[in-house]
Amino acid sequence: MKILITSGGTREKIDEVRSIANHASGSLGKLIAEKFLTHGHEVTLVTTKSAVKPNKHAKLSLIEITDVSSLIQTLKPLVKSHDLFIHSMAVSDYTPVYMTDLDEAKQAKDLTKLLMKENQEQKISSAAEYQVLFLKKTPKVISLVKQWNPQIRLIGFKLLVGVPKDELFAAATKSLINNQADYILANDLSEITADTHHAFLLNQNERYEAFTKPEIAQLIYEKGVEHD
Amino acid sequence: MKILITSGGTREKIDEVRSIANHASGSLGKLIAEKFLTHGHEVTLVTTKSAVKPNKHAKLSLIEITDVSSLIQTLKPLVKSHDLFIHSMAVSDYTPVYMTDLDEAKQAKDLTKLLMKENQEQKISSAAEYQVLFLKKTPKVISLVKQWNPQIRLIGFKLLVGVPKDELFAAATKSLINNQADYILANDLSEITADTHHAFLLNQNERYEAFTKPEIAQLIYEKGVEHD
Repeated sequence: MKILITSGGTREKIDEVRSIANHASGSLGKLIAEKFLTHGHEVTLVTTKSAVKPNKHAKLSLIEITDVSSLIQTLKPLVKSHDLFIHSMAVSDYTPVYMTDLDEAKQAKDLTKLLMKENQEQKISSAAEYQVLFLKKTPKVISLVKQWNPQIRLIGFKLLVGVPKDELFAAATKSLINNQADYILANDLSEITADTHHAFLLNQNERYEAFTKPEIAQLIYEKGVEHD
Repeated sequence: MKILITSGGTREKIDEVRSIANHASGSLGKLIAEKFLTHGHEVTLVTTKSAVKPNKHAKLSLIEITDVSSLIQTLKPLVKSHDLFIHSMAVSDYTPVYMTDLDEAKQAKDLTKLLMKENQEQKISSAAEYQVLFLKKTPKVISLVKQWNPQIRLIGFKLLVGVPKDELFAAATKSLINNQADYILANDLSEITADTHHAFLLNQNERYEAFTKPEIAQLIYEKGVEHD
C-alpha cells in the first residue's frame, strides 16, 4: 500500500521574522510512519522543518512544507496517488491578513476595511505599545481530501483541550461525517504527557482506546490496512 | 571567562495550541558557543526546544526557555554571574493579550476595552471567518542587562529586513547607546542565505564586516575576549 502521512505543525507568516505557529513535535507522525515502513509499505511523509523525523529508509519519501497554502499544493497530487492518508499534522486554522497599531484600528470607522489592507513592510515596526492582527480562516485541508480522491482511505485527527469526553466524541463524529473520513483519532491535549497519550480511534460504529503513542500507531496501522 | 549566550527564537502563546513565534534556527548561537568552548571558556547557552544546539561539553550548560517572561526570569541571575553576554536570540516583541472574532471587535465601542479581556478557552474557537488578535509590547530584555549587571560586557544583535545600510547602522547605533552595549551585530535578513551571512559588528568607533556565520563567530570571539 502507498501511505501518505502528515506530521508537525504549519506556520503562517505575519512578516519575514514572525509567524503564527501550531505546536506539534511530529513525534506521533514519525511513529506511525515507522510502523508502516516496518510492515513493508511505501510511505510519503509530509512534514515541517522543526518536526522530528524517521531515519532514512528506502521506502520513505520526506517532503517539507511550511504553511497551509504550501501544504495544499503539496498534498493535492499526493492524495490522488496514495491509498491511505493519515492526517496527523496540526494545521493552522487562521492566517494573518494585516497587522497594525491600535491607533489605526481605533480610528477605522469600519474594521472590515482593514481586511483589505496588506503590510508593505518586511518587518512590521515594533514601535507601538499595542498591535492588532487581523486573521482569516484557512481552507480546511481535510475537507478537500475526498474531493481530490474519493477512493483514498482517510484517517483524520481531532484535538481539543480540556473538554468532557462527550464533547470530544461529538466533535470527532462531526469531522468524520463532514470530511467523509474512515476514522478520526480523537484526543485531548490535557491527556498528553511526555510518556502517555490518551486517544480514541473512532468511526460511527467502532471506538478503540489507546494510552500511548506506540499504541496509537499500532491502532492506526491495524485499522488503516484492514480492508486492504 | 564565563560566557552567556542566547540563541533560537521565543514564542508567545495565543492559547494551548497556537503561538506567535520568531523565526530563528539557533545555528549562529551554536557556532558562537562552540568557538568559546574551543578556547577553553565556560559557556551557558540559553536557547529553545527547536533550536539547533552544540554537542555536549564539560564546560557547556544548556538551559531551555519558551517565552519572553521565562527568558527574563532565567537571564536575571545569569547576567549577574557571567562576564560576557552575547544576545543572539530572536525575542518576540509582542505577546498576545486577547483574541476574538471580528464581530465582537466591530461591536466594541472602544477597542481599548478589549485589552482588559482574557481568553478563558484553552483552545480558541475556530468558527468565525475572521479573528482579531490584540498584542502588547514585551519588555526589552537587552535594556535590562546593564541594570542587572553594569560590569558585564554586552554584545547585542539588530536584525532588519531589506533596508539601506545607513538605516541598519543607525538602528544598530541607537541600540548600542540605549542599551549601553559594547558591540552590536547588525545584519539584514535579505543578506542571509544557507551559506552566507553578511553582518557588521560595530560600536561608535569601530565597524568590522563578516560574510559567513563562522566569520561572525570569530569576530564576536575576538572582540568579546579583547579586554579580558
